[in-house]
Amino acid sequence: MNEFEIINTFFNQPQNNSKNSNNLHNLKLSIGDDCAMFGEYLICKDLLLEHIHFFSDIDPYALGHKSLAVNLSDLAAMGSIPCFFLLGIALPNKDEAWLAQFSSGLLSLAQKHNCILIGGDTTKSTKDICISITAIGKINSKSNSKILQRNNAQINDDIWVSGLIGEARLALGHKYKEWSISAEAFEHCIQRMQMPSPRVELGLLISNMANACIDISDGLLGDLGHILKASNVSAEINIDNIALSPYLHKTQCSKDIMLNCILCGGDDYELCFTAPTTHRNAIMEVGEQLNLPLSRIGKVSSQLHNMPNISAQYEGEILSLDNTFTSFMHF
Amino acid sequence: MNEFEIINTFFNQPQNNSKNSNNLHNLKLSIGDDCAMFGEYLICKDLLLEHIHFFSDIDPYALGHKSLAVNLSDLAAMGSIPCFFLLGIALPNKDEAWLAQFSSGLLSLAQKHNCILIGGDTTKSTKDICISITAIGKINSKSNSKILQRNNAQINDDIWVSGLIGEARLALGHKYKEWSISAEAFEHCIQRMQMPSPRVELGLLISNMANACIDISDGLLGDLGHILKASNVSAEINIDNIALSPYLHKTQCSKDIMLNCILCGGDDYELCFTAPTTHRNAIMEVGEQLNLPLSRIGKVSSQLHNMPNISAQYEGEILSLDNTFTSFMHF
Repeated sequence: MNEFEIINTFFNQPQNNSKNSNNLHNLKLSIGDDCAMFGEYLICKDLLLEHIHFFSDIDPYALGHKSLAVNLSDLAAMGSIPCFFLLGIALPNKDEAWLAQFSSGLLSLAQKHNCILIGGDTTKSTKDICISITAIGKINSKSNSKILQRNNAQINDDIWVSGLIGEARLALGHKYKEWSISAEAFEHCIQRMQMPSPRVELGLLISNMANACIDISDGLLGDLGHILKASNVSAEINIDNIALSPYLHKTQCSKDIMLNCILCGGDDYELCFTAPTTHRNAIMEVGEQLNLPLSRIGKVSSQLHNMPNISAQYEGEILSLDNTFTSFMHF
Repeated sequence: MNEFEIINTFFNQPQNNSKNSNNLHNLKLSIGDDCAMFGEYLICKDLLLEHIHFFSDIDPYALGHKSLAVNLSDLAAMGSIPCFFLLGIALPNKDEAWLAQFSSGLLSLAQKHNCILIGGDTTKSTKDICISITAIGKINSKSNSKILQRNNAQINDDIWVSGLIGEARLALGHKYKEWSISAEAFEHCIQRMQMPSPRVELGLLISNMANACIDISDGLLGDLGHILKASNVSAEINIDNIALSPYLHKTQCSKDIMLNCILCGGDDYELCFTAPTTHRNAIMEVGEQLNLPLSRIGKVSSQLHNMPNISAQYEGEILSLDNTFTSFMHF
């Protein structure tokens, strides 16, 4: 059972609440997207555990940053404006120097996005650090923009991805000794892994153009797969069209490593979205405005056999993907 | 540094957000009470960690119940209506029988209070179970009721406490071998510790009468102390007036154990509130309506030396409390 099966089996049960009760509290979106929505507010929550989501030697400033960044990334994927957050933190000891650094990284990012810490819980843990942040955003009512969901990708939409994906995975593989990269490459890529930039401005700017959006936390294939499943569509993508990190260029690493990082690497927290072809130029302009590469990597297609499918090619070669979109083979 | 000092030192810093920005997002209440508030919604968050907040042998049904109950208790202390919650859970393995029991306890309590699970995060942990729930409530706009805060206790208010407090602590002390109680007493009191009843209905019914309210999670003295500090007042209480659990009666345990459980025991999740004397009869009626003992244990008084103080007596004897309200001595 993976995470999604656990949620569907045990926690996404029909709850005995009448439609009236839902309407009363103004619930607009429940389990199944990056955020839930009630009233004009969006809400999301992520857990970060030592040894699972970060290494024990992580710089506390970076950890403070990342803890909030992953939640702001969920808000960004819905095209919403960050407003508030709550912090739950369990620590084995009260190291004040550590706490000062952690809170500095956390509150710097919060301030950058005008996101206010409004509450939470601080407690002792036996051994490991455990962090849980709940972030609250708001729909951008000033513009025409709508909430971006996963389930609205339309056939013939362009598929876009922001930034230079795969860099975080490249650093992780080096750390795990799956492969070895230069000191310069590691220094750059570990920053991408530990200090991701949530694409809040991008989410807001595309929110009235895109049809579906998700943040890439599990890997491009897996997260694009979530859009496809929710929207009942398939996709054709061409990896040649992805803006490539110089550290993933063929002069720096093998094709296998590059494809693995690009297709299956999480933790970059870039956005993957689909949008009508009529918005191509406007989306390119958004990328220029933000000084952020936006790659048009393919298009949404109709399903065969009622199963979402990703047809991916690179240098004219077709990649074979498993049906969970978590790995690939090339023939 | 205790929890409150950590929050004040590292996380309750003036954030560079203009009043305008706060008004824009409709923030009404931030760090410092049981919940924060924005728009018409209240929000709170608690972490529960294995070995710290619950024993490894806890019945998963009870753990599911308690995880939500402690959050509903925070909503109750503000006099609000539970609406939604998010669940973050980290588990060392995917034991489906355990998950089925946990979700059953969790969703049963949720259903009882019409509180809908709308999202969250499920992840792996290395060893211990870690649970983080965020609960969202709404002000009761149908009635005249207001939000109950900690900082509005008025001089001469009556001080009230609900239920039979101290039972959870009595079970905990037995479990820790601080003392020994009968099998029957343990069976009753461990239920109180593991399956607390959040006083949601009580919070709603007193919300237009009480001036200040808090839920007792840290102990009567400590939590009453939070009200006093926030309200700049003192208190005079008489322990003889507390409705006493039969298991804390002098035929069952020593005076020291009884006072320790009543005054310093947390985990009962009863409410402590202050209200004008004019509401005495109406509050007694609420207790009868809910079939819940409501004890009038003293009154709010003015401060001496600008420091909140609790003057507590039992059987004519004055108890001496430390100024953190976490322990006592009797002369």
